[in-house]
Amino acid sequence: MSQQEPAGGLSRRGLLGLVGAGVVGAGVASAVTYAAATAGTAASSGAAATYPFHGEHQSGIVTPAQDRLHFAAFDVSDLTKAELEELLRDWSYAASRMMAGLGAGEFGAVGGAYDAPPDDTGEALDLPPAGLTITFGFGPSLFDDRFGLGAKRPAALIDLPHFPGDALVESLTGGDLCVQACSDDPQVAVHAIRNLSRIAFGRASLRWSQLGFGRTSSTTRAQVTPRNLFGFKDGTANLRAEDTALVDQHVWSGGRDWMTGGSYLVARKIRMTIETWDRTSLREQETVFGRTKGDGAPLSGGSEFTAPDFTATGRGGTPLIADTSHVRLAHPSMNDGATLLRRGYNFVDGNDELGRLNAGLFFIAFQADPRTQFVPVQLALARNDAMNEYVRHVGSGIFAVPPGAARNSFVGAGLFD
Amino acid sequence: MSQQEPAGGLSRRGLLGLVGAGVVGAGVASAVTYAAATAGTAASSGAAATYPFHGEHQSGIVTPAQDRLHFAAFDVSDLTKAELEELLRDWSYAASRMMAGLGAGEFGAVGGAYDAPPDDTGEALDLPPAGLTITFGFGPSLFDDRFGLGAKRPAALIDLPHFPGDALVESLTGGDLCVQACSDDPQVAVHAIRNLSRIAFGRASLRWSQLGFGRTSSTTRAQVTPRNLFGFKDGTANLRAEDTALVDQHVWSGGRDWMTGGSYLVARKIRMTIETWDRTSLREQETVFGRTKGDGAPLSGGSEFTAPDFTATGRGGTPLIADTSHVRLAHPSMNDGATLLRRGYNFVDGNDELGRLNAGLFFIAFQADPRTQFVPVQLALARNDAMNEYVRHVGSGIFAVPPGAARNSFVGAGLFD
Repeated sequence: MSQQEPAGGLSRRGLLGLVGAGVVGAGVASAVTYAAATAGTAASSGAAATYPFHGEHQSGIVTPAQDRLHFAAFDVSDLTKAELEELLRDWSYAASRMMAGLGAGEFGAVGGAYDAPPDDTGEALDLPPAGLTITFGFGPSLFDDRFGLGAKRPAALIDLPHFPGDALVESLTGGDLCVQACSDDPQVAVHAIRNLSRIAFGRASLRWSQLGFGRTSSTTRAQVTPRNLFGFKDGTANLRAEDTALVDQHVWSGGRDWMTGGSYLVARKIRMTIETWDRTSLREQETVFGRTKGDGAPLSGGSEFTAPDFTATGRGGTPLIADTSHVRLAHPSMNDGATLLRRGYNFVDGNDELGRLNAGLFFIAFQADPRTQFVPVQLALARNDAMNEYVRHVGSGIFAVPPGAARNSFVGAGLFD
Repeated sequence: MSQQEPAGGLSRRGLLGLVGAGVVGAGVASAVTYAAATAGTAASSGAAATYPFHGEHQSGIVTPAQDRLHFAAFDVSDLTKAELEELLRDWSYAASRMMAGLGAGEFGAVGGAYDAPPDDTGEALDLPPAGLTITFGFGPSLFDDRFGLGAKRPAALIDLPHFPGDALVESLTGGDLCVQACSDDPQVAVHAIRNLSRIAFGRASLRWSQLGFGRTSSTTRAQVTPRNLFGFKDGTANLRAEDTALVDQHVWSGGRDWMTGGSYLVARKIRMTIETWDRTSLREQETVFGRTKGDGAPLSGGSEFTAPDFTATGRGGTPLIADTSHVRLAHPSMNDGATLLRRGYNFVDGNDELGRLNAGLFFIAFQADPRTQFVPVQLALARNDAMNEYVRHVGSGIFAVPPGAARNSFVGAGLFD
């Protein structure tokens, strides 16, 4: 197919982005891809798990939370609306291939085109997809006057307010576009972000990004509750994919517009003061959470999945679950029923000059409307949560996550109707 | 045992380090540990794999390379020689526990001691050890005049020379001590470094550290050759644990002193200019490596494990494997037989302000003597390797890795004889 643009493939501009000076067509000599190499073998193992790119919703939201994350926010360069659409088409095409376990794109004849860069960077060439999902979102800034999309900005895609205690670092906030790549293999997630970044060369560039290594939430009942870097079970009361009525109500965007079937993603990079935490007593740690550290049971009694009893009191009428505990302040019953589908990850980015681990939680939550979900819950936490002494919010982003792409279409097509 | 120092346990100073103001004894309420929780169940799966802490050699060298790394270099505070010994005893004790799938240390009565910090930070509480190895090393600076250890400094523990092209960042170099924690689960590796750092509080502090997510070498024949972030197979010609005669010759320190059965670790943080690489032709990429990208076969022909033929020429007498190719310059036959046991990992540390991935290879190699192994090989590469156009060495360390601890002893005991 050499000089021809493949049907549904990358745009010409996408190809130019790939190959720099305009030489079109390149393929890794042997054109080995995992999918090709294993064609005909059973793909039933967890590592070979694949999720659909096309569909009513994007994958990577209620999908069973994979173990590893590479999240990236991008800024769009000086493009026209048509060029932005082209970028989104190219990304969708490459994402659909990578989620299927293929390389980012193949154009050159097998064995030929040595004088052009390879279509795929290669580091995931013999790796199974390991449940890769690639989920795209649009930040508020995409709806400014550059692309004439202002009228399409959803009311729910607010600019997040300043929360008490916020210590945001400008270079870890915002972004016109975001990509959440999750996989059980970090090399597969990194490969996805790297190739999308490569395909966007000259059209969009990385603004900030984050690797996460331990999921801190379960999104299905089959998954055990993991632990955050405070050492506590995290996400015991998370929304689960099986609760379809709750998911319909709290995760998927209502209304009848281009966001129907979409959701809203809020990301917060939350640094933990690990060393201070590690020198506090077990009593203090459990009081802060409102749960036991070992089992994750509420301090009002029972086991992990027992509902917390916020009215239970101990000696002298003191609440067993403190008024400033995280579990109380975050609980739906304290927030007019507001709840979130959390999909966070632990991170460690080396250490600072004082020898403290630069570590914490990369919080990601999906919801139908941040105005009635993330914002009021985070306001309550920011004001009163005893945990605030041990955390600092340094990064932040909000993104409208469109519905899944129809077959032969792309994510965000509704923006260009 | 509350106020008593447990036999073989943490020193009193270690306990003080743990609990701040001197309150001794604490335990997570339920004292759940993975080992306890799964006692009596088979530990045959990969995730439950454990390696011995005690023995002739430290684990983590010829051990089958695990998938994830947390490497840390520490600076020792103003301690006496006896206090340094105490720190090493404490670290060995905690490491031996964690490698067995236990918490870092237990002292308090189960269910009691709520007013002291937990013995273990908890984030690996229900995780299997996943092949955790913790490997300790001593940097040249440990042998300065602070601890009176100058006479014990091995001749092979040189200060690394400056190599052409080095772009070292001071804060990513050196260290009195190093700890290499490897596991197939990153949370387990992070947990190990974090708890060792916590135990060292006031005695040693993190100088620099690195997470790695994709091993770039196989150390046994049972492992497939993984790929680095250039997308090429890496470590095809690595030393393998099965080649015991070669390992004895090239990995384990000779001589009859406290380092007998030890090795020397060289770490290099090598940043790759990913975006430039991704825009070079497949021809250039394969010429740089001297191997094909798809199969990893030498450009002189054959398949991955075919020996490269450096004399083979093509049209016009041009060598099929270029004179400046990485495979030629690094090959033992070009370096008086010098070879290394590599144990490197890929890394991605977010992106820089220009939107470029801060990514590359965290190179780790073990050897009997860096003077005849790493140094001459790296000199040859630094002078002529075509790959230099795409890499930048930003971090560096060299460490004497003592032999394994005898039962009831600790790593580095030979320093204090």
